[in-house]
Amino acid sequence: FYPGRMENSGYCGESFSSLQSGTSDEDMVEVSGPTVDLSSTDDVPPLERDYGGGLNGLPKLMDLLEEPVPGVGTYEDFNTIDWVREKSKDRDRHPRGKSKESTWALVKGISDAFSGWLLMLLIGLMSGALAGGIDISAHWMTDLKEGVCLNGFWFNHEHCCWSSNETTFQERDKCPQWKSWAELIIGQSEGPFAYIMNYLLYVSWALLFAFLAVSLVRAFAPYACGSGIPEIKTILSGFIIRGYLGKWTLIIKTITLVLAVSSGLSLGKEGPLVHVACCCGNILCHLFTKYRKNEAKRREVLSAAAAVGVSVAFGAPIGGVLFSLEEVSYYFPLKTLWRSFFAALVAAFTLRSINPFGNSRLVLFYVEFHTPWHLLELLPFVLLGIFGGAWGAFFIRANIAWCRRRKSTRLGHYPVLEVLVVTAATAVLAFPNGYTRMSTSELISELFNDCGLLDASQLCTYANGSEPKSGGNALPDRPAGAEVYSAMWQLALALLFKVLVTVVTFGMKVPSGLFIPSMLAYYHHDWVIFRGWCSPGADCITPGLYAMVGAAACLGGVTRMTVSLVVIMFELTGGLEYIVPLMAATMTSKWVADAMGREGIYEAHIRLNGYPFLEPKEEFSHKTLAMDVMRPRRGDPPLSVLTRDGMTVEDVEGLIADTTYSGFPVVVSHESQRLMGFVLRRDLIISIENARKRQDGVVSSSRIFFAEYTPPQPASSPAPLKLRGIMDLSPFTVTDHTAMDIVVDIFRKLGLRQCLVTHNGRLLGIITKKDILKHMAQIANRDPDSILFN
Amino acid sequence: FYPGRMENSGYCGESFSSLQSGTSDEDMVEVSGPTVDLSSTDDVPPLERDYGGGLNGLPKLMDLLEEPVPGVGTYEDFNTIDWVREKSKDRDRHPRGKSKESTWALVKGISDAFSGWLLMLLIGLMSGALAGGIDISAHWMTDLKEGVCLNGFWFNHEHCCWSSNETTFQERDKCPQWKSWAELIIGQSEGPFAYIMNYLLYVSWALLFAFLAVSLVRAFAPYACGSGIPEIKTILSGFIIRGYLGKWTLIIKTITLVLAVSSGLSLGKEGPLVHVACCCGNILCHLFTKYRKNEAKRREVLSAAAAVGVSVAFGAPIGGVLFSLEEVSYYFPLKTLWRSFFAALVAAFTLRSINPFGNSRLVLFYVEFHTPWHLLELLPFVLLGIFGGAWGAFFIRANIAWCRRRKSTRLGHYPVLEVLVVTAATAVLAFPNGYTRMSTSELISELFNDCGLLDASQLCTYANGSEPKSGGNALPDRPAGAEVYSAMWQLALALLFKVLVTVVTFGMKVPSGLFIPSMLAYYHHDWVIFRGWCSPGADCITPGLYAMVGAAACLGGVTRMTVSLVVIMFELTGGLEYIVPLMAATMTSKWVADAMGREGIYEAHIRLNGYPFLEPKEEFSHKTLAMDVMRPRRGDPPLSVLTRDGMTVEDVEGLIADTTYSGFPVVVSHESQRLMGFVLRRDLIISIENARKRQDGVVSSSRIFFAEYTPPQPASSPAPLKLRGIMDLSPFTVTDHTAMDIVVDIFRKLGLRQCLVTHNGRLLGIITKKDILKHMAQIANRDPDSILFN
Repeated sequence: FYPGRMENSGYCGESFSSLQSGTSDEDMVEVSGPTVDLSSTDDVPPLERDYGGGLNGLPKLMDLLEEPVPGVGTYEDFNTIDWVREKSKDRDRHPRGKSKESTWALVKGISDAFSGWLLMLLIGLMSGALAGGIDISAHWMTDLKEGVCLNGFWFNHEHCCWSSNETTFQERDKCPQWKSWAELIIGQSEGPFAYIMNYLLYVSWALLFAFLAVSLVRAFAPYACGSGIPEIKTILSGFIIRGYLGKWTLIIKTITLVLAVSSGLSLGKEGPLVHVACCCGNILCHLFTKYRKNEAKRREVLSAAAAVGVSVAFGAPIGGVLFSLEEVSYYFPLKTLWRSFFAALVAAFTLRSINPFGNSRLVLFYVEFHTPWHLLELLPFVLLGIFGGAWGAFFIRANIAWCRRRKSTRLGHYPVLEVLVVTAATAVLAFPNGYTRMSTSELISELFNDCGLLDASQLCTYANGSEPKSGGNALPDRPAGAEVYSAMWQLALALLFKVLVTVVTFGMKVPSGLFIPSMLAYYHHDWVIFRGWCSPGADCITPGLYAMVGAAACLGGVTRMTVSLVVIMFELTGGLEYIVPLMAATMTSKWVADAMGREGIYEAHIRLNGYPFLEPKEEFSHKTLAMDVMRPRRGDPPLSVLTRDGMTVEDVEGLIADTTYSGFPVVVSHESQRLMGFVLRRDLIISIENARKRQDGVVSSSRIFFAEYTPPQPASSPAPLKLRGIMDLSPFTVTDHTAMDIVVDIFRKLGLRQCLVTHNGRLLGIITKKDILKHMAQIANRDPDSILFN
Repeated sequence: FYPGRMENSGYCGESFSSLQSGTSDEDMVEVSGPTVDLSSTDDVPPLERDYGGGLNGLPKLMDLLEEPVPGVGTYEDFNTIDWVREKSKDRDRHPRGKSKESTWALVKGISDAFSGWLLMLLIGLMSGALAGGIDISAHWMTDLKEGVCLNGFWFNHEHCCWSSNETTFQERDKCPQWKSWAELIIGQSEGPFAYIMNYLLYVSWALLFAFLAVSLVRAFAPYACGSGIPEIKTILSGFIIRGYLGKWTLIIKTITLVLAVSSGLSLGKEGPLVHVACCCGNILCHLFTKYRKNEAKRREVLSAAAAVGVSVAFGAPIGGVLFSLEEVSYYFPLKTLWRSFFAALVAAFTLRSINPFGNSRLVLFYVEFHTPWHLLELLPFVLLGIFGGAWGAFFIRANIAWCRRRKSTRLGHYPVLEVLVVTAATAVLAFPNGYTRMSTSELISELFNDCGLLDASQLCTYANGSEPKSGGNALPDRPAGAEVYSAMWQLALALLFKVLVTVVTFGMKVPSGLFIPSMLAYYHHDWVIFRGWCSPGADCITPGLYAMVGAAACLGGVTRMTVSLVVIMFELTGGLEYIVPLMAATMTSKWVADAMGREGIYEAHIRLNGYPFLEPKEEFSHKTLAMDVMRPRRGDPPLSVLTRDGMTVEDVEGLIADTTYSGFPVVVSHESQRLMGFVLRRDLIISIENARKRQDGVVSSSRIFFAEYTPPQPASSPAPLKLRGIMDLSPFTVTDHTAMDIVVDIFRKLGLRQCLVTHNGRLLGIITKKDILKHMAQIANRDPDSILFN
């Protein structure tokens, strides 16, 4: 389904080298030595042009090419877009000024503005429905590993026992309709043989699911693997990866996500859900011309879709919007904020209507406790933050080291085997421990919950058999039962197990998220310590709170989010009183993790894959100037430029053949080096080809004109080729003395692809995004060639 | 305390015309007709300069001026800063590259980075403490209008009765220690005479407080009046208003805020609290050189301080950060997000420790209800949104019309009288109605609360005397008591009253906020309708929820916030389940209000006052080009430029005397018009003055050099003056064909003050921020001269 190039790209962990050959470095040249400007008379004097009248903007550019040549203004795969150009394109689409046909224009304007909201509505509905489907299927398939429902195989464990009347509240997960596999096949529910039987079937189901997932991904949509967030960040920053958000990726990712989650691998569904939502956004964009044709506009929609993804993953619409703003998006105008907000709302609402958790709430892990916390507890919270930060830094290093190993050694050649081995190991190790056997979300749900009197969880057993110590029936005064201690041990083992397995899992060739596994890595031992300290008092310690804060700290350490994480956590859990503990832990975690390594997991993966991503968070503090970064460098051949009217078709074709640069500046003349505009290689090639085919008289010796007015040609000369239409009349320029931090700022904020460097009004060189990234890599003592794409 | 200019400025509603004379329009000139570039040989050829070595950046600029001339690089009052220049200044402050003395540099680097966090900590502590003080004082003084505590006059009503043992829970606001004024003076607590006595004293206290407030503001700190948010928005966008965030403003605003709130005027304390927090931020900036000397850095701190202000006003730290991001800030990098987050956390925590509400919670109006809402209820929520939007649009129009009237008619000459009349009217009308007599926050608190069995509020009387209809004791099944209906009427009257009074109050010469009054304007009638509809069922309607959603809708209509408002509302009330209703109502409200008028209240006030504020939300969709907006226009005199080395001190002084422009481009020569740099008028004046005083041989006929290398001068000629050091070597340029929406985007995103326009490498004109604002006003058919400042 995908062209060969992408198949070779070795996505999700293999080598990228095959991709590089297709792309090229940009204009590495030097100005042609000391020149003397004697030719400026060939310049049209500024005031002779009719710029006084000019409300209508660009003069008749297309006088030769009646209709725009197809392909001009589009981008190649694995290239970076120019945001400013895309925005101009969008502006040109609008009717000029205030049209006279006011009613029709008004209707058009309204429908135009409305299409954005309609698109958001559709994305919200579609993503919400998909997320609901994924939740339900994953739940059912997870239970399928352990047994089946006799009332109907499509019921999951919980629903199966709901429909049975004989269930009491105490033992809601035991009912005759639900049969474990051993019970069904050999008729035994207890005993070592049944245990082994269940064990084997559990592992087999897991292997089957994992095998299906990895095969589907490899066969149909290689882009469907992994978390997707690093790539979506890169795409949102202006990079083009065709097919990454296409329909096949959507279908396969949805199916394999269910399979991967059900197989029991240590992965979450949030990253993939963001990817799924972005696919929905991208596909639905095709319904509206405004978004289909404009890469910048489409990225606004994708930013909103990312918010939708988090919104449905956690039932946290506001957190989703903030996540998109803080972590994922590159260009996030306030208009997008409102639309994201709306889309996230619609999606959350759709999900609530589907009601996959059966509690008619938006949130996955609703927390009921409202005990106020004590000032002294801030200390353990900060400790949790430190632990979380350390864990995050460790996780990133370990995971990156593992992924690098996978890329560089033979390990990377057997992705299916790798997935199967990891799945088998996970399943074999997970089954004996109750906390690892259940699905991750169930586990988190159990950990976050406060104990009630009727709670059947092992963690909540307070030595039930014995008489309460003090006369009252108050729970906290009872000594913790022996089962609690065994649960502690199991949890500690589960923590260790999850840590190791997650490092290996993230980055495999199956859809994988990171949030939920990270949330697990909490620090439950505090509970025991504090339980001893304040057992005579009232219910002074809420273990669920510690789990929550610990989860936030670990996630903060791994992703380096702060505000959005806190908002997600409290939307997720409903624990509004605990903003301050959450904030304290997240901040500490971020500081600690930042001290141990600058990058979050997503940035680390972006760098690992060599994407051209200009990190908006990192400050550029080095004191270099534009002239130190620009090409050509000293000793390089001169900058390849086009001149306003001095070149023939042949000259230009020669230039194109000789160089691999993606664009050429147009100057008034070689002598004056005064900049007129900028032409993209792709546009140039397409236009010349088109003119040769369709336009009479255009031959190799035809002169190419970028000037506004073509001087009358001698009758004998071949027809001229006017290409002003494809020239960008407003290229960005900086002077050679501009400090690089300002240049970086301009690139980031305006989303430039390249910028020309001038000195006293003469063209001197060019700086591309890739030059900046290489320069930054050089400063950080990294390999500048790790930046792979344009 | 303030210089005359500001006293004349007639702040908070008077005429601004006196300010205009001091400021000047910018470079309105035209290029000197068709010129021919024959002189380009006078340009230093690019490659002869040592730009290859150039890691050290700017060449020895200050070879003449050993130390920077004091005053160079600072701004005048009522002018706009250049963000890029400020950021460069901050970069220059840092040590060059990686210093060799690594330990010392490391310590310095860490203390430098740490100073930001320390500053945030201090701002949080100071603002939190001030807010706590304001809350406590305002509560006490509000109660003082009605009576006094015998146990100690410093107790407010609630505390007074807490300390009394005889109080039962049912009548917690009645205790013998608390005496109304009538009781104290004439010994009667009932009867018409006592009522009149209380009435009179209530009005007198209100008048006294209001008089004190307005007098203090007029005498000591005229900037302390009003909400402050429009001005803070403008300041954050780069405008300079000296003293607006000074210590006198802080002191007077804190005192008068308490007085104004206590006087019973229909105003809230959030706007002023944001102002107070920003004053704290600005004052504390002076402790750190890094922030004292850099206007851009200081604005980052102020953005965080704005978040702190909202955080303490509502106990909503996350909402505060979002408010700063969405509504107030102009430049909000992610680093500021984290710092704001930290500062807001510290402030909220400080406030919690002071515990002014006595409930040890962060939030003002904690809501206890957790009833799920029904899908059908979305309809009334959307209706509430429509109502809120309409109210918002109406409020803005009415308020702006009133303020304009105040500015243009004689009304503006009697601000003290105006305040007294409004206060008297408010107090006289407010006293008879219980809902208007109580303080606004008490009222909101009561409205948001769900009724409990023990609730003493009039709204919760369910015909207590009669037997419940159905056998159960369930509250919802009881018929609403007669008192509820009378309460309904009172509330309706209160709503009408608040609406009218708030329109008049906002913009008066006392500190005034808008949030809390807007929150009041809710739509309580739904309650009655729905009560009838579902009285046989369970507790299906939560009246508090309607109040909450209504408040959000009205606030949304007035301020046009969305995400931040929802977050504030649910941090404020703790009602996490109600995100969807809140979102629905806020979005509807925003749409409706936007349809009826584009601007929010703060933008409207900014425009009313003529501040040079480039709205980041509004999209510029007109298709004009840079050449249509730039000066000089056709027919204007040529652009005033300096040349690289062709001018004497006398020439330049003449140019300065003849023009009023705030800066001059430097070109290579008049003939070539090739741009070298840009010099600010202020810097030029200061440098020449300084050189004339301190430097031997600089006389009127000295030549001024902006070139890097000064050619050897004949011995007879006077000493040259080298001014390259004050020249901006990297002025921003765009081509004349650049679309204006891109130019506006550049101005917004980079925070430019001016931008030069070139055509084919020649200087053609200049565009300033004011030119853009005037152009935008022209497009919107407004008076371009309404933009007053530079």
